[in-house]
Amino acid sequence: MSVNDTITIQVQDAVDAIAAREAVHTVFLAACGGSFAMLGPAKYVLDHESADTAAHHLNAREFTHRAPKSLGKGSVVIAASHSGTTPETVDAAAYGRDHGALVIAITNDGESPLAQNADHVVTYVHGPDIDLHDSSEGVLYRVVFGYLAAREGNTAGKNIDASLSALNGTLKKTRDDNAGAADTWAAAHKKHELVYTMASGSNFHEAYAFSICLLQEMQWVHSAAIHAGEYFHGPFEITDKDVPFIVLAGIGETRPLDTRAIDFVAKYSDDVVVLDADEMELTGVDESLRGYLAVIIFGKWLRLYADALADYRGHPLSVRRYMWRMEY
Amino acid sequence: MSVNDTITIQVQDAVDAIAAREAVHTVFLAACGGSFAMLGPAKYVLDHESADTAAHHLNAREFTHRAPKSLGKGSVVIAASHSGTTPETVDAAAYGRDHGALVIAITNDGESPLAQNADHVVTYVHGPDIDLHDSSEGVLYRVVFGYLAAREGNTAGKNIDASLSALNGTLKKTRDDNAGAADTWAAAHKKHELVYTMASGSNFHEAYAFSICLLQEMQWVHSAAIHAGEYFHGPFEITDKDVPFIVLAGIGETRPLDTRAIDFVAKYSDDVVVLDADEMELTGVDESLRGYLAVIIFGKWLRLYADALADYRGHPLSVRRYMWRMEY
Repeated sequence: MSVNDTITIQVQDAVDAIAAREAVHTVFLAACGGSFAMLGPAKYVLDHESADTAAHHLNAREFTHRAPKSLGKGSVVIAASHSGTTPETVDAAAYGRDHGALVIAITNDGESPLAQNADHVVTYVHGPDIDLHDSSEGVLYRVVFGYLAAREGNTAGKNIDASLSALNGTLKKTRDDNAGAADTWAAAHKKHELVYTMASGSNFHEAYAFSICLLQEMQWVHSAAIHAGEYFHGPFEITDKDVPFIVLAGIGETRPLDTRAIDFVAKYSDDVVVLDADEMELTGVDESLRGYLAVIIFGKWLRLYADALADYRGHPLSVRRYMWRMEY
Repeated sequence: MSVNDTITIQVQDAVDAIAAREAVHTVFLAACGGSFAMLGPAKYVLDHESADTAAHHLNAREFTHRAPKSLGKGSVVIAASHSGTTPETVDAAAYGRDHGALVIAITNDGESPLAQNADHVVTYVHGPDIDLHDSSEGVLYRVVFGYLAAREGNTAGKNIDASLSALNGTLKKTRDDNAGAADTWAAAHKKHELVYTMASGSNFHEAYAFSICLLQEMQWVHSAAIHAGEYFHGPFEITDKDVPFIVLAGIGETRPLDTRAIDFVAKYSDDVVVLDADEMELTGVDESLRGYLAVIIFGKWLRLYADALADYRGHPLSVRRYMWRMEY
């Protein structure tokens, strides 16, 4: 059995378990940092597609301390951690089980503590050249759209498998077309101490991940992810000719928020990069899923910028000063 | 009839209307910028206190474009705007009504477009020396705890009125005790180009408001609000001796997140201010409400820092370069 088949069975088992529950009212998406960001689009999909399920997206420690009263037998907890060892996320899984929820772990390591504290485990493959169908984002969407189909007869994700597979071609073309621009940007920004990101909707947390993981954590560059709808209600006042922004223009329902923000920021800053999902070659991706799936390509597209920046700064993305090096 | 009585009747009418609904499953908290931040604690309270209501806290434009499928007759929309003219928030109210939701406007202007697009209006008083019982945050909590009592028999807020009134004394003492420290901090930071804030739980969005409204918007100082639980999963890597942080230590369920972050940041940065709710004099505030209500004092406590910073920078908080000055 290939890895692929293993994952497919894991996804199906998780969806079957959700379908078998007497009732599901709430979904808690709990994780930390990059995995927390990865779960963000699932709330967007559930908000937009489900009349019966309330999705809550919370940092894992915030989740266990906030202690949501609606957590119980009618809940699904989706907890994600790459290594499966993040203590807060392992605790979130255990906390969910203690409260009677169905707990699904999404992790790279099916034998990890997180996996052991979950009712069902969905693993994923990881690396620069994987099949996106079996990536962390891919398996998350497969579980979520499987859930919507199984419990609510929602067919929005009926072509999710083929659409995720088609993204492999999108990714190749995106990389080919944009490596040069990323390199140029990185060369020009190797001494910049601050870079803002901006996005909305299902893409917001990809901007957040780039800000907190790639820039703050891995490059020690100051950053904040600005919500494109919030931009005009405060943050836009820090816009100036020399303030750098990387803005994601989505192709889902919230695109008008992005384009409005881009029109403004590009007028008052001379240092704006726009990554526009409208430029993605999405042949084979279901029309109705494109807005949701663009975030997966944005993550890899942004990675071009991070890799190039790391190179010009002589600061590999793997270097940390605190993480894994001391007690905290 | 005094203003006070008018507001009390408005709150009661709103709560009565919520109670009279056949069913309420979802509450959408929709606003922009500072008003968006103001609504944040209401989601925290509803998450922690209600088994039956799912609260969603969304930027007003994100709300209308995301188009949550659970919005309907079983929904309450709470939309807030100080002037009541914020176009996105007026649209959110209209959108809620169009979908059959009960729409409650929280605004300083009971005749505003927002008020006109709502089923019920709750006004509030505004200014540096108001009765906090009738502040925007006060009326929001009165509606939320009234809702919990009316629909779910939840008595957590049975002393909300007396507790809010008691906060007036807390505020006076907080100002008296901390004006000097705020002045000292502002003098030392008048040339700083970036200040981070950090918080968790019901206080997170007060840190967010300080970052996006006071620092970015009103002082053109770069900033980001870091969630204390997320800090260790990325942002903490930008901590350094000379990187300024203002951290809120709450006294609610998520306090352990705050104190862990404070222990770390204070070790690796020499430029950390901690505002600790444990130092607030809370006589007369119900023990079980203190964790929720501290955010109201935090807002005014942070304002001391903003006022002093504005003074030392010679940049009044009222000055903008884009807001209200041009098309956007």
